Amino acid sequence: MSEVLKTLSSRRSVFSLVSSSLSFPWDISSENLPLSQAFGKRIARDLLSPLDYPPFSRSLRDGYAVTSSDTQGVSSSSPVFLTVTGEVPMGAPAQGRGFPGTAVRVYTGGEIPPGFDSVVMEEEIQRIGDIIELRSSTPQGNHIVSQGEEIPRNTPILSRGERIDFTNVGLLASGGYTHIPTATIRAGIISTGDEIRSVDTPELSKGCVRDANGWALYALLEEWGCTCTYYGVLPDDFSLLKKGFSAALEENDLVFISGGSSVSTRDFCEKLFRETLSSPGLLVHGVNIKPGKPTLIGGNREKKKIAFGLPGHPFSCMVVMMAVVLPLLRSMLGMEELFHTAVTARLAGDLVGKTGVEEFIPCTFTPSGDALPKLSRSGYISALRKMAGFVVLKEHEETLRKGDSVEVLLW
Amino acid sequence: MSEVLKTLSSRRSVFSLVSSSLSFPWDISSENLPLSQAFGKRIARDLLSPLDYPPFSRSLRDGYAVTSSDTQGVSSSSPVFLTVTGEVPMGAPAQGRGFPGTAVRVYTGGEIPPGFDSVVMEEEIQRIGDIIELRSSTPQGNHIVSQGEEIPRNTPILSRGERIDFTNVGLLASGGYTHIPTATIRAGIISTGDEIRSVDTPELSKGCVRDANGWALYALLEEWGCTCTYYGVLPDDFSLLKKGFSAALEENDLVFISGGSSVSTRDFCEKLFRETLSSPGLLVHGVNIKPGKPTLIGGNREKKKIAFGLPGHPFSCMVVMMAVVLPLLRSMLGMEELFHTAVTARLAGDLVGKTGVEEFIPCTFTPSGDALPKLSRSGYISALRKMAGFVVLKEHEETLRKGDSVEVLLW
Repeated sequence: MSEVLKTLSSRRSVFSLVSSSLSFPWDISSENLPLSQAFGKRIARDLLSPLDYPPFSRSLRDGYAVTSSDTQGVSSSSPVFLTVTGEVPMGAPAQGRGFPGTAVRVYTGGEIPPGFDSVVMEEEIQRIGDIIELRSSTPQGNHIVSQGEEIPRNTPILSRGERIDFTNVGLLASGGYTHIPTATIRAGIISTGDEIRSVDTPELSKGCVRDANGWALYALLEEWGCTCTYYGVLPDDFSLLKKGFSAALEENDLVFISGGSSVSTRDFCEKLFRETLSSPGLLVHGVNIKPGKPTLIGGNREKKKIAFGLPGHPFSCMVVMMAVVLPLLRSMLGMEELFHTAVTARLAGDLVGKTGVEEFIPCTFTPSGDALPKLSRSGYISALRKMAGFVVLKEHEETLRKGDSVEVLLW
Repeated sequence: MSEVLKTLSSRRSVFSLVSSSLSFPWDISSENLPLSQAFGKRIARDLLSPLDYPPFSRSLRDGYAVTSSDTQGVSSSSPVFLTVTGEVPMGAPAQGRGFPGTAVRVYTGGEIPPGFDSVVMEEEIQRIGDIIELRSSTPQGNHIVSQGEEIPRNTPILSRGERIDFTNVGLLASGGYTHIPTATIRAGIISTGDEIRSVDTPELSKGCVRDANGWALYALLEEWGCTCTYYGVLPDDFSLLKKGFSAALEENDLVFISGGSSVSTRDFCEKLFRETLSSPGLLVHGVNIKPGKPTLIGGNREKKKIAFGLPGHPFSCMVVMMAVVLPLLRSMLGMEELFHTAVTARLAGDLVGKTGVEEFIPCTFTPSGDALPKLSRSGYISALRKMAGFVVLKEHEETLRKGDSVEVLLW
């Protein structure tokens, strides 16, 4: 058990220990999904552009394709006259070639006939019959995107692990990808704890609450790109828990077990990890973050399985997901950037922290764009509602003042 | 046609004109979806908490429930001894009541027996047999969340229009909502333009490109909470376009038509809006933003329909979605905040802008959290990949310098 971090680990040491012990990145199984079903999933492998983009030199304006050398030294007192020899209809190839002294009518997005090297906008010329008059010079390449200028054929357009969404799907569609190789990341979610009841419990007995963590994990992981199975609330009985946990490990790549909040549940989970996982087995036993300290991480390198034991408090559970779990999943997929987006913001008010532990405080932004932390007690279930991310108070930072700069991890 | 904004409109005037002309907010039809299918959808109506949360006074720590007055003036030189009369097992109601001089073993999340008003942590006491020794005083309410403290019964837990995700689903699950009233927002997506081909076109003819806008709109609107129908690429023929557009308006609440980039397509779209929509019909004809100027907005107040004519360039199309369309959809649902999240950031480099028009430049963030704008030509399809949002250069702002503060609209 020499690999287990027995004391509280910093996030940085968790990332490096887990990534190296489990030999990240992993080859994840993949599935070719139709484009309309691929949104929100993660891309399984680097994709190349099958074509130059744009596939032909295009005009960025409605106007006339011309030869720039024809316009050298031209001014309003010394205009040049060019003969319009035709037009390029939209969606059709350009006919013929450009020659000095001539021009061709082009539209935004239309092809530039070979030979021409510049576009003058419609509003910059005078046209009489087939003659246009130019009163200023136009540089080479003006209002033209040349073939392959943005994306030469065979250059990477998406990298493994990227989430498919509105920011990149145009690249897939333009490349003719009707089906997308998406990573199939199966996540099993188990809730446990003697006081936890399923959501469909009509009347709660005194001392019980309904499962919040399981559904928050489900929503977060599906949105992140996983395919989730919810195993419900397992009783706080070791043999039943072990049976359910082992089944979930068999059927999934990732297993999340969020404890009730009792000591017995926490002890159970640790025992569960030690008895169920091997090579390397339990890796992390406590992370030096607040909230979220009682976090367990284990895995099996050969079978490519990871298990996470998460705190029972919903707010703490989500901090661990954002601060520890999702970065590890990015590492698992081979992504370089472990975090989604981090910004620097001014604090809208004082924030009391303590040194020696990394703290995460939910925050929103004021109309003027400053970070407004919202303090919640750890048992609260509404702590993240309407928030935009977490203010991060680093281990060495204590109380910060209004106007100080802070890091904000956005989700 | 007096209501039509004939000149370029500022975003602010667009929001107020469209919201008032179409009598926002609208009653949108809704559907009760099982919890696991409700993620990513918008909530149809304000929801109340059916219970106090927490439903009983809970301990936030493993320790002992005590009576705070027993500990007044207690110190290490003058400790107090309390008799442990029992424990509250997890998931079970507390038995009996608390009396002065006594204590009860409690666990994190467990019920506090009535009569006790404070919890001391396990590590703060010495226990010998049934006696615990306290060496410091504990205030009233220490480590206790009292019944209904976070959410009193019948207070609103989610507001109409909120997107159901990991930040708020715990509130729904805790309240026993197995089915969620979600807004059914049907969005029809039409692409057009003589040069636009469908994504499954195996070989593009010269002068043609595949449809990028339609799929980017699909991905964005589904993620936002709509249910999308993609009508494909309609030919640039007015009668066919009118037929398709009318059918889409019949079958959806929102219709998006993104033009090819040619003048003829733009003219067609305006004619389409004028001939197809009434009461009030065409409302906005050009927005003073860059890119995204040639935007059309129209609607029918009685039938509760909105139509958007969007620019052909994929990058411009997405700017209009973020800057104009999504805020209007929030207004349609009656949400007060029109924007998702806006932050203030320092510019990581100079940014050349021009006055008189509001400009949107895609940006990411540097490791130190500064906004790093990425300049793209308007025809580029990769402009938003790996970006986090848009830097907004306001109408009166010209060139900004490295280190200046800018507003960033995040998505």
